Amino acid sequence: MAVRFCNYFHPSLSSFSSSKPYSLTSASPSLPLRASRLSRPRISASSTSSPIMEFPYVSPPHRDLMVDLLSTVETRLDSQLLPSTLPPDVQSFQNQSGTAHGSFHIRSGHDSSPIDFILGSWLHCELPTGGALNITSLSSYLNSSTDAPNFLIELIQSSSTSLILILDLPPRKDLALHPDYLRTFYEDTKLDAPRQTLEIIPEVKPYFSSSLYIRSVVSPTAITVRIEGDAGDSGRLEEIIKQHLDPIAKQVLGIWLDQCASGKREVGESERAGLENRDKLIKSKTIEIDLGSNFPRLFGREIADRVLGTIQEIFSK
Amino acid sequence: MAVRFCNYFHPSLSSFSSSKPYSLTSASPSLPLRASRLSRPRISASSTSSPIMEFPYVSPPHRDLMVDLLSTVETRLDSQLLPSTLPPDVQSFQNQSGTAHGSFHIRSGHDSSPIDFILGSWLHCELPTGGALNITSLSSYLNSSTDAPNFLIELIQSSSTSLILILDLPPRKDLALHPDYLRTFYEDTKLDAPRQTLEIIPEVKPYFSSSLYIRSVVSPTAITVRIEGDAGDSGRLEEIIKQHLDPIAKQVLGIWLDQCASGKREVGESERAGLENRDKLIKSKTIEIDLGSNFPRLFGREIADRVLGTIQEIFSK
Repeated sequence: MAVRFCNYFHPSLSSFSSSKPYSLTSASPSLPLRASRLSRPRISASSTSSPIMEFPYVSPPHRDLMVDLLSTVETRLDSQLLPSTLPPDVQSFQNQSGTAHGSFHIRSGHDSSPIDFILGSWLHCELPTGGALNITSLSSYLNSSTDAPNFLIELIQSSSTSLILILDLPPRKDLALHPDYLRTFYEDTKLDAPRQTLEIIPEVKPYFSSSLYIRSVVSPTAITVRIEGDAGDSGRLEEIIKQHLDPIAKQVLGIWLDQCASGKREVGESERAGLENRDKLIKSKTIEIDLGSNFPRLFGREIADRVLGTIQEIFSK
Repeated sequence: MAVRFCNYFHPSLSSFSSSKPYSLTSASPSLPLRASRLSRPRISASSTSSPIMEFPYVSPPHRDLMVDLLSTVETRLDSQLLPSTLPPDVQSFQNQSGTAHGSFHIRSGHDSSPIDFILGSWLHCELPTGGALNITSLSSYLNSSTDAPNFLIELIQSSSTSLILILDLPPRKDLALHPDYLRTFYEDTKLDAPRQTLEIIPEVKPYFSSSLYIRSVVSPTAITVRIEGDAGDSGRLEEIIKQHLDPIAKQVLGIWLDQCASGKREVGESERAGLENRDKLIKSKTIEIDLGSNFPRLFGREIADRVLGTIQEIFSK
């Protein structure tokens, strides 16, 4: 789920190998695309000496949101998280020509914690016709000691006026078969309210992933929207991020931290096996869909194998 | 699933018991609301002597679509269907004041058939502030000799310019856990194409059921849309029904008839039990959500008990 971002820019990526003109406008002039090309992502030490990821390239409200969310998760779950063990060349990597740049940040949970791992990522790639694609994501996975939903946010920005937002607590059970689960995590928590708040903004349109599998693994309260500002007016998109996406994302993360990451759930032995099976399949399928075909194209076979191999290893534990 | 219509007009129904003014415009003058109020639904004999339901009150394109769909299903599945055994007072019923009128048409499948039953229904109720609500639906349920998806269409018309459409092949398995099933019935059949065709029409907007459970049981290719024509221009809605909904609904029904109702599937004994359990739960929950609270309010306790009791009995077989 976490690194499903490439799915959302399939159409963009396909432009790399086709002769179709790419119609994106230039990225915001405030984003130092070329200047940052060869620099490593800025990773600073947090108060607990664990690395805090930053999210370069994107606009200040977009970056602030992601930094705040990751910082909230790391602060709140700090005692449950192990230090990052990702090799430096998976924490940050780029293609030979320096037009694509990516970064992962993963921290696993202690054995005694319900946290499986948290995963932050960003990807930046210049588009052949100008402008850039920036994808930032944060997800938190729970292990099979609980059946509570995971957390996922992903922002896919293909220009300074266009953004796709995926924000969800993806369920870990078949909701049709578990109405009590639906009530506990989605109805009683009023998780549909943030979605309703967002949908009345005129620039907000529904977004459908091109992958039916990805659509199948989100919850009925998932926010999957495309926000389209007027061409040339990047200010409006930044305003929407700041005034609407920011509080809504923090509200959903708060629900996840309070109701999912902290709550006690009874999970029997056979149910646990079922959960592990379902979790593993979803993680494996989403890597395959999102990264499998796009990563080699963006970064070359060697880097793709190294990065995906490491992610897959963590996902299949 | 089939009789989930009341869910979609929760907001409308709530106006019956609140002092909030109801803002719907009058129904199309071509619909003889009062004249038909006390008449029984027109049920005529088909070529095979089974009753064919008609759909009174609604506009000609809406009625033609529903009659065509039901007729197609009955003709195609004829040899597999038993005659209707519904008591006349469940086939057609109305409240004491004659302001609400409903009709069900159910035919079960032969024991040797994969068809569990087909269900057509319509509901008409006058709104306290003028106009009327008309809901028509057709669904086809398969039994546990196959795990193929069911079929569902529902049109909810709250004025001559406003319509909600639900069109889907609701899955009978957890799609996150069964990507092969998703590929067979949703990807290989290109079921997302009709949804994409419809979403580009300017009057078509996404529709979210107020029930999260209902949202959880539909497929990722489900068409759940609200079509809003300009007030006073009922011609445009009729045109959209005729030119767009009609061919799309027939295309989706065709996929269901060819790929789901006719295909052979291997279903093992334990899987069969799981399917029955899931099917039963979904049917029971959707009756509870859709009809449980609204039917008594619309038709009075006695009629509601009779009608719902009969439907529940068929659903739990």
